[in-house]
Amino acid sequence: MAAAYFSLGKADMRAAFEYFVRDMPKSRSFLLFCGLEQALEYLENLKFTDDQIEYLRELQVFRHVSAEFFDYLREFRFTGDVWAMPEGTVFFAPEPALWVEAPIIEAQIVETALLSILNFQTLVASKAARVVIAAGGRPVAEFGTRRAHGAEAAVMAARAAYVAGCPATSNVEAGKRFGIPVVGTMAHSFVMSFDSEREAFKGYLDVFPESAIFLIDTYDTIAAAKLAAEFGEQVVGVRLDSGDIAALAKDVRRILDEAGMRGTKIMASGDLNEYKIDELIKSGAPVDSFGVGTEMATSRDDPSLGGIYKLVEVLEGGRWIPKRKASQNKATLPYRKQVYRIYRDGIADHDYICPHAEEHEGEPLLVKVMDRGRAIYRRTLEDARKRASEQVDALPEPLKDIWKTARYPIRLSPRLEHVDQS
Amino acid sequence: MAAAYFSLGKADMRAAFEYFVRDMPKSRSFLLFCGLEQALEYLENLKFTDDQIEYLRELQVFRHVSAEFFDYLREFRFTGDVWAMPEGTVFFAPEPALWVEAPIIEAQIVETALLSILNFQTLVASKAARVVIAAGGRPVAEFGTRRAHGAEAAVMAARAAYVAGCPATSNVEAGKRFGIPVVGTMAHSFVMSFDSEREAFKGYLDVFPESAIFLIDTYDTIAAAKLAAEFGEQVVGVRLDSGDIAALAKDVRRILDEAGMRGTKIMASGDLNEYKIDELIKSGAPVDSFGVGTEMATSRDDPSLGGIYKLVEVLEGGRWIPKRKASQNKATLPYRKQVYRIYRDGIADHDYICPHAEEHEGEPLLVKVMDRGRAIYRRTLEDARKRASEQVDALPEPLKDIWKTARYPIRLSPRLEHVDQS
Repeated sequence: MAAAYFSLGKADMRAAFEYFVRDMPKSRSFLLFCGLEQALEYLENLKFTDDQIEYLRELQVFRHVSAEFFDYLREFRFTGDVWAMPEGTVFFAPEPALWVEAPIIEAQIVETALLSILNFQTLVASKAARVVIAAGGRPVAEFGTRRAHGAEAAVMAARAAYVAGCPATSNVEAGKRFGIPVVGTMAHSFVMSFDSEREAFKGYLDVFPESAIFLIDTYDTIAAAKLAAEFGEQVVGVRLDSGDIAALAKDVRRILDEAGMRGTKIMASGDLNEYKIDELIKSGAPVDSFGVGTEMATSRDDPSLGGIYKLVEVLEGGRWIPKRKASQNKATLPYRKQVYRIYRDGIADHDYICPHAEEHEGEPLLVKVMDRGRAIYRRTLEDARKRASEQVDALPEPLKDIWKTARYPIRLSPRLEHVDQS
Repeated sequence: MAAAYFSLGKADMRAAFEYFVRDMPKSRSFLLFCGLEQALEYLENLKFTDDQIEYLRELQVFRHVSAEFFDYLREFRFTGDVWAMPEGTVFFAPEPALWVEAPIIEAQIVETALLSILNFQTLVASKAARVVIAAGGRPVAEFGTRRAHGAEAAVMAARAAYVAGCPATSNVEAGKRFGIPVVGTMAHSFVMSFDSEREAFKGYLDVFPESAIFLIDTYDTIAAAKLAAEFGEQVVGVRLDSGDIAALAKDVRRILDEAGMRGTKIMASGDLNEYKIDELIKSGAPVDSFGVGTEMATSRDDPSLGGIYKLVEVLEGGRWIPKRKASQNKATLPYRKQVYRIYRDGIADHDYICPHAEEHEGEPLLVKVMDRGRAIYRRTLEDARKRASEQVDALPEPLKDIWKTARYPIRLSPRLEHVDQS
């Protein structure tokens, strides 16, 4: 399409594209915007290397495309403006979380990468926020690397989970790259590589005298808990990874308490999600923290976010012309838009979506984050995490009920509803 | 754990770990092994950089770990042997698709990366094989980049889909990196950026006179089909991306045929999966090819593969000792194992899993792929694709019915079932 815009002399037509979700996922009452930092990095650094251009040039499909197009790619830099919600902002369908205003060829070239960056981190952050809500203040460590969709997805899932409130990850690369606290415990294979569990526990404690968490379900959980009890209070925690966690946690707690190890924590893991965590807590299981992997890092119950990137306005003859798509069931709202959040007593009451230029009461959620290709609004990961926490706190209670899906009131400006333009 | 093995003097203990899936996913009758090439690349190239080691050294948790461990990491190379099924091999739970034999510290360090590489590509290949079966010989293009879990996941999903039989991808990076044919069509925004659909189509055809596929659902599909018909046979295809595809395809086919455009193909896309494709074909919809995105690139109905990596044997005092884990519902089979596939009249009849050293009739599925850290068995992507095609062809018919889940017969060597060792 870039080649077509270029060849048809339309490359420089100024256009605006919005990133939004058409419909809320079935089991999500809110979304948590995440991935803006990576999106801005991508836009600032995007260029085409010589061998990439050579590859394209040799594709059969580009046979009739002029050499000038490839020269254009050689000099390509993204020069557009971007408005977006800060990371950690709660949003809903069909609100734009980001929009790009740029020469149409640039806005089009960056589409797929923006979608893949924003869709994935927002997907995981939105799922992780539910898990964090369910854990009710108990720490949730992100453990999903082995089931994430590859190594890079694992790192980004850890980042998104951290933004959503998980205090730590087992992904050491995410720790290194983003400063996220890392945690680890032993694996079953570690226990199995010793002649006895006692030897395995003792060895581990020697190496990690201040942070040893024993995995106690390799053979017999109760027997292993009794063994752990022999080591006393220096055992920071024990981890349950299989079986009837609720029942086992109670037995293990009693064993530890009887050994005077009230400070030794119980961690639960093993295919947990927000529902299982809520049930465990409601059953009174004395679990102090959780390790959540697959379900969070892949958003297992709803593993793709339908975020899309649609043309909403073009500049023609010095005038911005709103654009909308009229496909069956897939209509879009025209104009670059702003979203205002209206609070009552500190709680979000409703949102109002309107053309960007329209003024309204409430908090405007989109801010200018990039000016002519240069990021002008950078927030730390801690800022994003803090915003996420505040945003989720300010949600009406029904939206925080993980068992039911609630719909938040969104109002549209009359100007969006009565545009008669195809 | 590596630090613990090292500090306890156990780093050099030779151990074997197997990659396998404990239970078949609910809606999968077979799995297609994929990702071995990336796994071998990872193992051959793995090392720790100075800044990675510096990061680890400064972690609180490693405070009591000796400097020698970090020196060890500095010199680290993977030196183990690996046996695996060639890519494109069909396998089933609980068959090992790969095993690693190495000093336990090395085998342990590579665990998470191996799992994330193999789980993801095998997940997508196994889903894509179903989509390819449903398409019944009609080409399926991989279109999932915008919903894949990030840019790297998108490239690997395209690779896995290609192995499984998709002839092309819209991911240009996958095209460049792996030589996979790339395809593209226009987007709705392209159509919308013109004052009329006619202008958009004409412009596109000028630039791509030999490969133009018109997207015809931006406004009114039937009107756009009639417009496409004005351009005659040079239009390679039209794409339907929304609405009632079955009904629209019939109307569009008639419009094209009446214009003498029998050679112009109809492509369908838009949240397709194997079920919808099968229904479309059975309804007689004249669709010639499919574009499948989200459902395939995220394996949407089952988005994580539970592949695990478990200790199965250790060398102690010159003798290999089988190991098994006895956790509730999570038991493992001991020994490094071989899998034999027994065919009857060219169709797979059953598999036989046994200790590696045991001889049996049939095709041994695991071959030695790495010797002392050096890959010794490399196959091209075309080899993998060919093997996948042959392997799926040789499956019993019930396993190829996408609507039902069938279970393939697996027999276990008596030696695996009667080991009394914890």
